[in-house]
Amino acid sequence: MQDRASATKRNVYRRADVARVIAPRSIAIVGASERPGSLGLRTLQNLAAFEGAVYPVNGKYKELAGRACYASLAELPQVPDCVVIALGQDQVEAAARECARLGVGGIVVFASGYAETGTEEGRAAQARLTALAHEHGLRILGPNTTGFANHLIGAHAGFAEFPPAGAPVRGTIGLVTQSGALGLGLSQAAEHGASISHVLTAGNSCDVDVADHVSYLAEDDACRAIALVFEGLADPSRLEQAAAVARAAGKRIVAYKLAIGPEGAAAAMHHTGSIAGSDADYDALFSRSGILRVARSETLIETAIFLAKAPPPSARAAAVMSSSGGTAIMAVDKANLHGVALPQPEGRTLEEIKASIPSFGAARNPCDATAQASTNPDSVRRCAEAFLSDPRYGALVVPWGKAYDSPVLARLGELGAAHNKPICLVWMSQWLEGPGALEAERNPNLAVFRSMDSCFFALSKYFAS
Amino acid sequence: MQDRASATKRNVYRRADVARVIAPRSIAIVGASERPGSLGLRTLQNLAAFEGAVYPVNGKYKELAGRACYASLAELPQVPDCVVIALGQDQVEAAARECARLGVGGIVVFASGYAETGTEEGRAAQARLTALAHEHGLRILGPNTTGFANHLIGAHAGFAEFPPAGAPVRGTIGLVTQSGALGLGLSQAAEHGASISHVLTAGNSCDVDVADHVSYLAEDDACRAIALVFEGLADPSRLEQAAAVARAAGKRIVAYKLAIGPEGAAAAMHHTGSIAGSDADYDALFSRSGILRVARSETLIETAIFLAKAPPPSARAAAVMSSSGGTAIMAVDKANLHGVALPQPEGRTLEEIKASIPSFGAARNPCDATAQASTNPDSVRRCAEAFLSDPRYGALVVPWGKAYDSPVLARLGELGAAHNKPICLVWMSQWLEGPGALEAERNPNLAVFRSMDSCFFALSKYFAS
Repeated sequence: MQDRASATKRNVYRRADVARVIAPRSIAIVGASERPGSLGLRTLQNLAAFEGAVYPVNGKYKELAGRACYASLAELPQVPDCVVIALGQDQVEAAARECARLGVGGIVVFASGYAETGTEEGRAAQARLTALAHEHGLRILGPNTTGFANHLIGAHAGFAEFPPAGAPVRGTIGLVTQSGALGLGLSQAAEHGASISHVLTAGNSCDVDVADHVSYLAEDDACRAIALVFEGLADPSRLEQAAAVARAAGKRIVAYKLAIGPEGAAAAMHHTGSIAGSDADYDALFSRSGILRVARSETLIETAIFLAKAPPPSARAAAVMSSSGGTAIMAVDKANLHGVALPQPEGRTLEEIKASIPSFGAARNPCDATAQASTNPDSVRRCAEAFLSDPRYGALVVPWGKAYDSPVLARLGELGAAHNKPICLVWMSQWLEGPGALEAERNPNLAVFRSMDSCFFALSKYFAS
Repeated sequence: MQDRASATKRNVYRRADVARVIAPRSIAIVGASERPGSLGLRTLQNLAAFEGAVYPVNGKYKELAGRACYASLAELPQVPDCVVIALGQDQVEAAARECARLGVGGIVVFASGYAETGTEEGRAAQARLTALAHEHGLRILGPNTTGFANHLIGAHAGFAEFPPAGAPVRGTIGLVTQSGALGLGLSQAAEHGASISHVLTAGNSCDVDVADHVSYLAEDDACRAIALVFEGLADPSRLEQAAAVARAAGKRIVAYKLAIGPEGAAAAMHHTGSIAGSDADYDALFSRSGILRVARSETLIETAIFLAKAPPPSARAAAVMSSSGGTAIMAVDKANLHGVALPQPEGRTLEEIKASIPSFGAARNPCDATAQASTNPDSVRRCAEAFLSDPRYGALVVPWGKAYDSPVLARLGELGAAHNKPICLVWMSQWLEGPGALEAERNPNLAVFRSMDSCFFALSKYFAS
C-alpha cells in the first residue's frame, strides 16, 4: 500500500518540477556493468543515442561500453540531472541518499521488493523513499519501474528494449503507464509508423506518479496527445489537476484503466502495491476532467494518435467514402451505435459526388464510391473534395478495404491538410501491417484505425469536444 | 429486394447440392479477355493454380494466357462444373440459359444492376435468374459477387485479388460474406499466418446465399470453423438449418451481422438489395442456433480460428500465465467482464508454480511469472505444465507482452498439444505482425488474439459450449 499520508499532500508536479530527470542533459548509471543481460548493461546500451553526457558508475571498471567509468557519483565531472540506480534493493536507499545530498535532479529505481510485496518491510522501505523525495526535492521514478524513454533526446533511461520511436510527424503522442511491460508492448506501435515522443512508466510511484507524467507531457511541446494506462493512484485528484494542465494546453488524454473490479484490484496490489479505487469514482473523474476512456487497450494508441493529428472540429458530423457496400453498412451501424451524425449530401455536394463515382455506386452518405473509383486517385480526389468542401462535414471516414500500395493514400492526406479536417482511414484488412499501412500511419493528415468501432467511438468524442 | 416468393420456398442447400460449382473439376470463363484490368483476365489469372481444367470462352481468341480459347460453351471438350460469367449485365441471362441447357453445375455472375439498384427492372432481372436456377437445378452465385476462392484446390473463381491462403494447419477456417470487399479484406489474415480454406462471397444471392455457403462448409472436411459476415437473408430459417448441419459436424459458426439499425438497413438495400431484418430476431436466431455473434468485425477471424483450433473443453475455467503484472490485471478484468472463472491454484499445482517462478513474481491465478521467467523456456514449461496438468483448468491464457522471436512460442504449442487444451496467446504488442506473430499464428496449438477482450469473450463462449 502506498504511503497515503505523505504521498497525497501535494499538488501534481508541473513540467519544471520533473524536467531535470525526464529531459536530462546528463545521466549516470549506478550499478553499470558489463555482465550480459544485467540491467546496468542494458541501460547503458539503451543510452547509445542519448544526446547528453552518460556516466557509468562502478568501482570495478575504468571504462564501460567505450565510456569512462567512475568509482562513485561524487567523482563525476558534474552533478548529473538523472541517475539510474541499477542496484539490488538493499543498496538502493544509500544510493538515493547520496543523490539527494549531491543535488541530483532525479533518480530512476528499478529494484522491486517494496509496497508490491504487501509486507510491512516493503511498505516501510517505500515510505522512506517517499520521505526522501519530499524532504530533498529529489524526484524519484519507481521503484519497480523499467525506466522511461524520452525519444526527443534519445534518452532511453531504462532496461527494457524500447523500439525506435518512429519518424516524428504531427501527431506525436506521449505514453504513460504504470506497467513497464504494457508501456513497452504499446510503444511497439512505433514499428508500424506511430510517432511516440515519450514512454514514461511509473511503477510503484513512491514519488512521481502517472498524474505527474501526464502533467509533464501536457507542457511538452512535442507531445500533442497523451495515452495513459494505470491501475491506481494514491491521490486521484492529482490526475484531475494534470487533466486541467492538458486542457489548458489544448491536448487530449486517452486513458485505459486497469483493475476495474475487486479481483483486478487484488492483482493490482500484487503488481505495484496500488489501490485500484472505485471504478465508478474514476469514471466520474474521467468525465469531469475530459479524459477519454477506452474500454479496450488495443484501441488506446490509435485513438490518441487520431486526437493528436486532428485539428479542432469545424463541424460535428461525418461523411463516409467507401469502396464497398459492405464497409459502408458497417460504418452506418457504428455511427448509429456511437451517435455520430452522417447527414445526407445535398445540392452542389450531391451533384459533385454523383459526377465523381460510377452510376452503380451509391451517391449518398455513406458513399459507396465502388472499388473502381476508389483505386482512381482522380475519382477519389473529386469525391472526397465534394464532402470536405461542405461545411456540414467535420471529418471524412474512408474504410480501406484491402492492404495494398496505393497513390490514393497520399492524395487523401493532401486533401485532409488542404481542408484542415481529419481523414480517418479504417483499415478493414486483416493484413494488419500490410502494404500501405506504414505510409498511412506516418502521414500527418491521416488517422489509421484498425477498427470501425473505435473510429466512430473516437469521432463521437471528438465531435463532442 | 429479393424475390421472396421464389427464393424462400426451399431448404438450405447441402454440400452435394453445390459441390459442383464450389469444388469444381473444370471451370469455364465466358467473357475471358486479354484486356488488362478486365474481370475476365483477372479471373483467368486467379485460376493459374487451379488443379482442374480451365476453359476461356471468347470467339475473338484462339488462345488466352497460354490456354486454348473456345468460341462458345457448346464447343468445350466437356460440360464444365463451374462457369464464370464475366459479361455485362445485358448478356448474362442468355449465357445463364445456355449453361442451364448444357447441364453446367453452377455459374458465378459478376454483373451488377439487379435488385441492389432498387428498380423494377433490376428486381425482375434478378427474379428471372432465380427462376432459372430453380427450374433447371443450375446453382447461381451472385449476381453482383466478386466470386469465390476454394483454396483447397487452388480455385480462385473470381476477379478480386485474393491473398494466398496460408499453409494449411489444424484450424483452417472457411469465410462466408455477402460483400466481396469484406471477404477479401478479412481473408488477408492469411498474410500473417491464418489458414483459410474457402472465401465464399454471396453478393445478391439470387439462388445460393450465405446460409447455403455455411451449410457447404459444415460438410467440408478441411474446414473446422466458419466465419460469417452478412447483412440480410431472404429466409433466415435456412441459416438455422445450416447451423444445425454445422452442429452435427461439430463445427462452430462465428457471425458478424451488418445492418443492425434502420440506417444500416437502407445502406444494405443499396448494396445487395438485401432485407436486413430485425436485429432482435437475428440475435434470437443466433442464440437458438449456437451461432457465436461478435460485435466487432476485427475479432471475427481470430475468434473463428480459436474455435477451429481448440479441442472440446475439458473444464470450464481458465488459468493465466503472464510475464507482467499489468497484463495479469487486464486478464482478470476481462475474465470478470465476460464471466470466465479464474480459480486459484491449490496443493501440488500451487507448489509447482511457486517453484517455477522467481520469488518476486505472483504464484497465483493470474500468475505473474515475471519477464525473467517468461523468456526462459524451462520456467515457462514448468509453470504452464503445472496449470495444464490440473484438471480444473480448461485453457491457458498467455498475455504476450512484446513482439520478439522466442523459442517459448513453440514450447507453448507443444504443451497445448500434450495436454489437449487450448493455449490462447494474447498479443499485447502494438507491433501487430511483429517477430513471432507468424510463427504463433501458424502453430496449430496456439490461438492468437490481438485483444484481451476478445480472448475472454471467446473463452466464455467456448466454456459455455
